[in-house]
Amino acid sequence: MDKQHIKLLSKTSRAHVEEGGHFEELLEVTSTDCRTYHPIHCKQGLIDLGPAENALCDDLLLPVLNQNLPKISVEHIRYTNFSSSVGETGITTLITKFLQDEFSSNISESNLILTSGVGSANEIISFAIADKGDAFLVLAPYYYNFNDDAGLKPNVSLIPVYHDGTEKMSECFNKALEKARQDGINVRAVCIFNPNNPTGKVVGKDHILDLIDWCQENELHLIVDEAYNLTVYEDKESFQSVFSLVKPDNPYVHITWGLSKNFSVPGFRLGVLCSFNTAVLKLASRMAVYNSVPLYIRNICSSLFIDRVQCKKIIKESNERLKKAKDYFTKRLADIGVAVCKDTISGFYVWADFSKYMPEKTIEAEKNIYKRLLKFGVCITPGYMYSNLDYGFFRVIYAFPQPTIDLALERIILALNPTEQPRILESLTSDIDDEIEFAVETCTLEDDVKNLFSALRSDKQWVKENTGEKWAKENPAAAKIFEKK
Amino acid sequence: MDKQHIKLLSKTSRAHVEEGGHFEELLEVTSTDCRTYHPIHCKQGLIDLGPAENALCDDLLLPVLNQNLPKISVEHIRYTNFSSSVGETGITTLITKFLQDEFSSNISESNLILTSGVGSANEIISFAIADKGDAFLVLAPYYYNFNDDAGLKPNVSLIPVYHDGTEKMSECFNKALEKARQDGINVRAVCIFNPNNPTGKVVGKDHILDLIDWCQENELHLIVDEAYNLTVYEDKESFQSVFSLVKPDNPYVHITWGLSKNFSVPGFRLGVLCSFNTAVLKLASRMAVYNSVPLYIRNICSSLFIDRVQCKKIIKESNERLKKAKDYFTKRLADIGVAVCKDTISGFYVWADFSKYMPEKTIEAEKNIYKRLLKFGVCITPGYMYSNLDYGFFRVIYAFPQPTIDLALERIILALNPTEQPRILESLTSDIDDEIEFAVETCTLEDDVKNLFSALRSDKQWVKENTGEKWAKENPAAAKIFEKK
Repeated sequence: MDKQHIKLLSKTSRAHVEEGGHFEELLEVTSTDCRTYHPIHCKQGLIDLGPAENALCDDLLLPVLNQNLPKISVEHIRYTNFSSSVGETGITTLITKFLQDEFSSNISESNLILTSGVGSANEIISFAIADKGDAFLVLAPYYYNFNDDAGLKPNVSLIPVYHDGTEKMSECFNKALEKARQDGINVRAVCIFNPNNPTGKVVGKDHILDLIDWCQENELHLIVDEAYNLTVYEDKESFQSVFSLVKPDNPYVHITWGLSKNFSVPGFRLGVLCSFNTAVLKLASRMAVYNSVPLYIRNICSSLFIDRVQCKKIIKESNERLKKAKDYFTKRLADIGVAVCKDTISGFYVWADFSKYMPEKTIEAEKNIYKRLLKFGVCITPGYMYSNLDYGFFRVIYAFPQPTIDLALERIILALNPTEQPRILESLTSDIDDEIEFAVETCTLEDDVKNLFSALRSDKQWVKENTGEKWAKENPAAAKIFEKK
Repeated sequence: MDKQHIKLLSKTSRAHVEEGGHFEELLEVTSTDCRTYHPIHCKQGLIDLGPAENALCDDLLLPVLNQNLPKISVEHIRYTNFSSSVGETGITTLITKFLQDEFSSNISESNLILTSGVGSANEIISFAIADKGDAFLVLAPYYYNFNDDAGLKPNVSLIPVYHDGTEKMSECFNKALEKARQDGINVRAVCIFNPNNPTGKVVGKDHILDLIDWCQENELHLIVDEAYNLTVYEDKESFQSVFSLVKPDNPYVHITWGLSKNFSVPGFRLGVLCSFNTAVLKLASRMAVYNSVPLYIRNICSSLFIDRVQCKKIIKESNERLKKAKDYFTKRLADIGVAVCKDTISGFYVWADFSKYMPEKTIEAEKNIYKRLLKFGVCITPGYMYSNLDYGFFRVIYAFPQPTIDLALERIILALNPTEQPRILESLTSDIDDEIEFAVETCTLEDDVKNLFSALRSDKQWVKENTGEKWAKENPAAAKIFEKK
């Protein structure tokens, strides 16, 4: 980045670019130096357990999505209502019915604004209720992209609030509110992530009700991000969605929700903002013009909801697979002395304590673990990025096929042995099949055949050397079968 | 909208909601009271010549888009690079090559950021270079949504600048700049729409070069919106794209471009921001996370570019159809004494002077024409919404099938006769087929059959009454053909 160019930005943008360094130090390593692991094309590639994706349900999702793939028709290429799709197969109507049913909720279609993902919904609600420089109190730890959701364009400051479970949640927020007001900060909202990202814990019903009341008393908004509310795979009764708890005339409560995590389809960028504040809804629908979901994508996503039995089956099966994968990963981590948070009951991740392998509990030591693992070909996300104070915790995504997880564990074990020399990054450049732009985990039979041809094309010498005659010499018994009679 | 709810918004948002009334008065009439015209389902419906869409090329586009419609695969549902798709079939690479070729441009892939439409690209560049309260100087008239692109979330003030063609363009902007600075306003950029929306005129090469130099001298950014740069259907040599004029090391120039108008596919929400400022690009790629285009949509759009011969053919044919439709519409308007701007050579609209039918040249008189036409079932957009000072002009979209345009003209002629009584809106509620949620202009044979069944289902009485026997009695000659021998 040219320093002269930075000077041409606005004041706010300059600050963003300059402060941006906080996480960029880590993120840039990932994006620049590493190729993504692929079981065939890039065996030495980076196994990225960073982004929160669920790769366990492709076989459930793809057939449903492809089954009724609509032809592109005139209405798909025209302008459409930017923030809503109602009607029998309209995604807004389908999501409304789904949420009503799943969470015994009283919401109606008119409470929902479609957005390009949950992050966009968070961005829009931030714009609607806060001015630049205003602050939100956020239950910490919280997922680090929220720093951009609320902090980048809306320019809202985030104040992490910690709750140790012993007192009422509103008391923690009350202390934080008083402190902020003493400092001359204008607090506009309380934000919670339920289920929580990165811990996978849930905030109980009583705490939610307490917060709803306390926010209303203090004329603060309450933003509840429920991006993961369908991923609770055990102890389900301990989670109760705010969709079922909020009264539909409460203009302070706003819920963000989406398909990215709940249905494991982040590529479609489909989220919703749910609000009971008519002014927020009006403004949000105007803002969402810039964060809209193409009608064709809405139509594709509708196929997930139209058959309710199938929809419930996908969620149930997904939860079972997540639980199984989490139990396996937890056990394997325990074998090397890495304990995970015991209250995690949702999401695609464990909240793992690597402090045993750190000389001291500091941000620097977390960064060193992160960098060391990266050199061995595994990426996990350090807790300080989530404003976690108890240094040593990492969010680790486990929702991958078991062979990938096993390889990741092998690499983690090597990396944690201080006498081992890094062996992955150094060899990366030599082990790259440049024809593959988007490496993916799952291979169909068709993919396998394509890969074979691709490998053959890219290694002509092998083809020349490995003739049928050579093979027959080396495998005389097997070759007999193919001999012409 | 509940007034108590408005109080809960941020200061900025309250101002947006309260100022929003400027255009809402007009827009709300359209969205609330009218059903869209459909040649079969809603013959009395509103013919909306407001939104800038081109309905003349569906037969060219849909076969190409559907021909290689990909199956949804794993990479479509996963996260992908939010702001770029490079590689042989990556839309960023394809658009880069297209722009290089079409406009002899020196841009590279790294200059482009994908956004959800041109409006989002305008929003992002506004955020990058301006703080809340800063101002842009905008060559007027300009398309009214830019008030939201730059003014809603980025909160930039827009100052219209008028150029009568007699002096250097930079002189007009210089006067406006001096005036703004005297008023204590921090001007950050000059914005031009080329080709212009709403007039369809183009800004000549010399003016562009003049502005590029003047902006750099004055350390102002230059935003050029070329949303319509492929729609120039006559006098083509008078238009020269800034893609071909800007030096690729100029960090002040930013171009916004997209498929919505240039390829008549606004439903896909695919635009790009092109910049040569590395800091803008870095920040924009972070911001575009919230304005991203799903990979599946990118893949669909790639099909427009992969076959270059086909791509050029679509553009050429589209331009020819636009010219033909414009000439027809212009002639028909001339018959009723409505002249159109003679320099219009691009876009989907004429810039039509209805002042002959106005008692005086005022905003109120424009609004009255607008409202009167609306009552007769036609919507056109008054010039004041584009900050046009010479009251009486309207932007009128003509890119519809001729029968629709003929009907619109009939209604316009009726409306302009002061002795006629409004006859459309009053009858609208009785002529609605409620089963149809998204009425569209073009019908395939399949649609026709569906419509027939739909009509039969919804009017069972008709089916009972209109038996074959009844028809045979009324059409004895024709019935003879069907008689059993």
